[in-house]
Order: sequence, then C-alpha cells, then structure tokens
Amino acid sequence: MLLGKVMGNIVSTRKNDKLTGYKLLLIKPYYGDEDRIFVAADQLGAGIGELVMITTGSPVRFGLDKEAPIDALVVGIVDKEPDL
Amino acid sequence: MLLGKVMGNIVSTRKNDKLTGYKLLLIKPYYGDEDRIFVAADQLGAGIGELVMITTGSPVRFGLDKEAPIDALVVGIVDKEPDL
Amino acid sequence: MLLGKVMGNIVSTRKNDKLTGYKLLLIKPYYGDEDRIFVAADQLGAGIGELVMITTGSPVRFGLDKEAPIDALVVGIVDKEPDL
Amino acid sequence: MLLGKVMGNIVSTRKNDKLTGYKLLLIKPYYGDEDRIFVAADQLGAGIGELVMITTGSPVRFGLDKEAPIDALVVGIVDKEPDL
Amino acid sequence: MLLGKVMGNIVSTRKNDKLTGYKLLLIKPYYGDEDRIFVAADQLGAGIGELVMITTGSPVRFGLDKEAPIDALVVGIVDKEPDL
Repeated sequence: MLLGKVMGNIVSTRKNDKLTGYKLLLIKPYYGDEDRIFVAADQLGAGIGELVMITTGSPVRFGLDKEAPIDALVVGIVDKEPDL
Repeated sequence: MLLGKVMGNIVSTRKNDKLTGYKLLLIKPYYGDEDRIFVAADQLGAGIGELVMITTGSPVRFGLDKEAPIDALVVGIVDKEPDL
Repeated sequence: MLLGKVMGNIVSTRKNDKLTGYKLLLIKPYYGDEDRIFVAADQLGAGIGELVMITTGSPVRFGLDKEAPIDALVVGIVDKEPDL
Repeated sequence: MLLGKVMGNIVSTRKNDKLTGYKLLLIKPYYGDEDRIFVAADQLGAGIGELVMITTGSPVRFGLDKEAPIDALVVGIVDKEPDL
Repeated sequence: MLLGKVMGNIVSTRKNDKLTGYKLLLIKPYYGDEDRIFVAADQLGAGIGELVMITTGSPVRFGLDKEAPIDALVVGIVDKEPDL
C-alpha cells in the first residue's frame, strides 16, 4: 500500500455509472515522487491534509461492496505520521 | 486513477477483434512524467484537450460491457482542473 | 496501452509450455523511457520497425485464446505515427 | 518479488474492515529507489531491520487466508543479505 | 515480459507455505534501470549468468501448477542475447 496526503477533491459529472457514490480524492504520494499525484476513491471520509493508506490495482476489489472500475482506494487513515 | 489530457486519436486497422468499437485516445499524464504518453479506450466521448480520469490495469474490466484486452479506460471527464 | 516499436525477436527454446506458439517481440517504448525495452507476445504478425499498441498485465488474458503466462501482448498495429 | 527492509509499523484506527488482524509494516526497498517506502501486510512476524521478500499486486491474494484489499504482502524473511 | 540476468539465489526459511518448492532467483534487469534488482520464482532451472524472460503480475498464475503468492516467474531462458 502507498501512503499519501489528501490534497482535494475531483468532481466528474460525466463518468462511468459504476463510479457513482464514491468520493474521489486527489492524493499526493508521501514517499517517493511527490509530483505523481493521483486519484483514489474513498469511503472512509478522509479529509484534506490527512495521511491515508491506499491500495492499488486488482486487490482494490476486495475493499469495495460492488464491482467498480477503481484502481486506487483509501483503505485506512493513518493515526500518526511515521517518524523514520 | 490517473488524470490526463486527451492529445489525439490512435487508429489501428489491424487489431485484436475485441478492441472493435472502442475509441482509442492518446493521453498525456497531467501529473508526474508528462512524456509517458499512453493510449486509453474511451466510451464517454472525451474530446481533444479535455482533462480525463483513467483507470488502469485489472479494474478496467468492471468498467466495460464485455471482456476486452484493455488496460487503460477513460472513466470520467473532469469538470474543472485541480487548483492545488 | 503503450505504444512501442518492434526491434526484433526473442528466441527461447527452454520455456514454459504455455508460451508455445506465440511470437515474442522485443519492443522499445515510443514514449517515455526508451531504454525500458521489453518483450511482448504477438499474434497479429507485426514486423520489425512497425509501431504497435501493447496491452499489459491482467487484461492481456482477454486478448488470448487460451490461458498463458503473458503480461504484454500486441493488440494493434498503428496505421500512422502520432503527430503531436 | 521485491526485497525490502522493515522500517517500522503503521497504525490505522479508521480502516477498511477487511484489514483487521494484519500487521502493517513500513518497507524500504533494498534495491532501486530507496525513497519509495511503502506499506506491506505481514503475517510472518518480521521485525524492524529484517530483510523481507514482498509480493505485490494481484498474486497477493494467494498468500492470504481470506480476501482483503492488500496489494503488498511479506511472503518471506530472507536468511542472509545478498552478496552481489 | 522483462529480460533479466540471473545474479544468484535467495534463501528464506521462514516463508509463506505456498512458496515451498520454488527456487527464488535474484534478477537484474537487462534493459532500463539495472539497479532495480528483484526476485523471481523459477521452475526451468536457470543458472547464474543466464539471460531469462520473466512474466510479472497477475498472468504469473497461468504459468504455475498451483496457486501461489508469486508476482514474478521465469518463463523462458533466452537462447542468445539480443543484438540491437
């Protein structure tokens, strides 16, 4: 899983039907290439500035209630920033 | 999901049968390595210059009506460019 | 999907049985890191120097007639090089 | 599979239900981009500083007892650091 | 598929049960980032210094006799190094 900071929301009116009901968050990677900002679906209610854990790819489907074309999902809100 | 700008179309006459009926768009990543231009299938009618959201990999199949060897699919047209 | 140029063939005598019958092509990425040359299976008859479209990962299986451990497949031969 | 060093733990109180019961480890890649630290689930009891082998993506599900949205799993603790 | 050189073996005594019986090889990418060394399972008997072809991700399962958390598998030993 990746760690990332929630930067904001993405609104898409014309979209695939199966994406309806998911909040779409802009995520900035916490480690590695910070400029590779991406979009993750969220059902946990993560807020802007929070550090979240994101699952990507095929395993995302095990975190969803129904099938959807989602390749990145917020699966946890991290309690405390790592202190490496 | 990735955000990208629609740069143009790709035409392929000799192709896998299961790709018939999909529009193939050249997509330039909006964040990260802009030069990693790729091709995504589209059924939403995205136009050149529009900012779109693309799902990649295995979850693409949940956005298609039938099975096809497609690893990148336009799943949304973004209403407004992010203001980070 | 990725765009790439066909650079040559790969011959492997000792290989996984399920790869028998596929032509294996060396592919140079057309966009992005040109040095990340990889191997893709081909059933369309792409020739050296042609520009092809390649599907990678899990969706490859929808382009094959039978199950095989193939993670990159030529799914189209591009009619004309993009003019960006 | 990737090799990585265990750097610490990640605690997430608000998380996807299916992640309950897995230890979440911060992993630093042993080869390549060391700064691309990521999170892997662990059921082998790997300790901080140990070198582990991690499976990523879709094949993770074959290493789990039940379905979970996990895209990186510790599948082995390496006996001895490689001597290349 | 990727091409890579076999650099050595990885031994892991404490590992996921389903990995038992596979030889684990350290692989150095032949093209691209040479420092992104990774581990691939092997059932073909590849030796140190040989050039091999590796399938990664979800399609690996079609090359295995049984389900295992393996994301990289040697699927061929290349007869002759490419001459590009």
